[in-house]
Amino acid sequence: MGAMRLHHVGVAVENVEEAAKLYQEMFGCKLSDLKERGGLRAIFAYVGGDEVELLEDHRPDTPIGAFLKTHGEGIHHISFEVEDIEAALREAKAQGLASEGEKSRIGIHGVPIAFLKPEGTRGVLIELCQKK
Amino acid sequence: MGAMRLHHVGVAVENVEEAAKLYQEMFGCKLSDLKERGGLRAIFAYVGGDEVELLEDHRPDTPIGAFLKTHGEGIHHISFEVEDIEAALREAKAQGLASEGEKSRIGIHGVPIAFLKPEGTRGVLIELCQKK
Repeated sequence: MGAMRLHHVGVAVENVEEAAKLYQEMFGCKLSDLKERGGLRAIFAYVGGDEVELLEDHRPDTPIGAFLKTHGEGIHHISFEVEDIEAALREAKAQGLASEGEKSRIGIHGVPIAFLKPEGTRGVLIELCQKK
Repeated sequence: MGAMRLHHVGVAVENVEEAAKLYQEMFGCKLSDLKERGGLRAIFAYVGGDEVELLEDHRPDTPIGAFLKTHGEGIHHISFEVEDIEAALREAKAQGLASEGEKSRIGIHGVPIAFLKPEGTRGVLIELCQKK
């Protein structure tokens, strides 16, 4: 699959507004508005043309909630933007890389995303996200 | 401090050549040549204009060696490029953010770098790197 660029770095935090304030004050990041879906709360902090996705979720059965519970705050995933996410998923599977689910789902950015399991990617949770 | 852009994501791996091969085959990344300094071995995988810094070090008293030993392979840090690293370090200190060392040191990219301790940055090890 051709990965076009690093779309964002996802960071799990206990409180998304407090974390966003830190990135704003420390690095002069511009911030998105608050995105909410179910119990997931997100603010994107922009570093030049790049993005740190700050993610809060306290439901223990969600990826971010489980990560916060077992690991605490920290870097959760990196996201690569791809031209065609379904083709990328098929290619990953052909290369023996497991994904979480056979198909993509709509992420907090409003575009289809999928995750490659870290067992196949040397410990790194890699998100694929469809180019807008 | 003004962070200009996300310079790279640093990933700790057990074997840098094997990890580089994965990024090359899976995402079509171009690779740097192997960088070696002391026991630190690094290859940079380029994703469009972005970079994943693959880092291997098996000396247990080094940051990467200690991380591999306690955590295993995974995302180690994110790096923000700044205009003036010494000014950025002074500013971080004034904002109550601790750095590892008072001054910068030359990193594997050949430019001055410094790390902000994750205790002050909500669990994220943030590298500052001087713009070339």
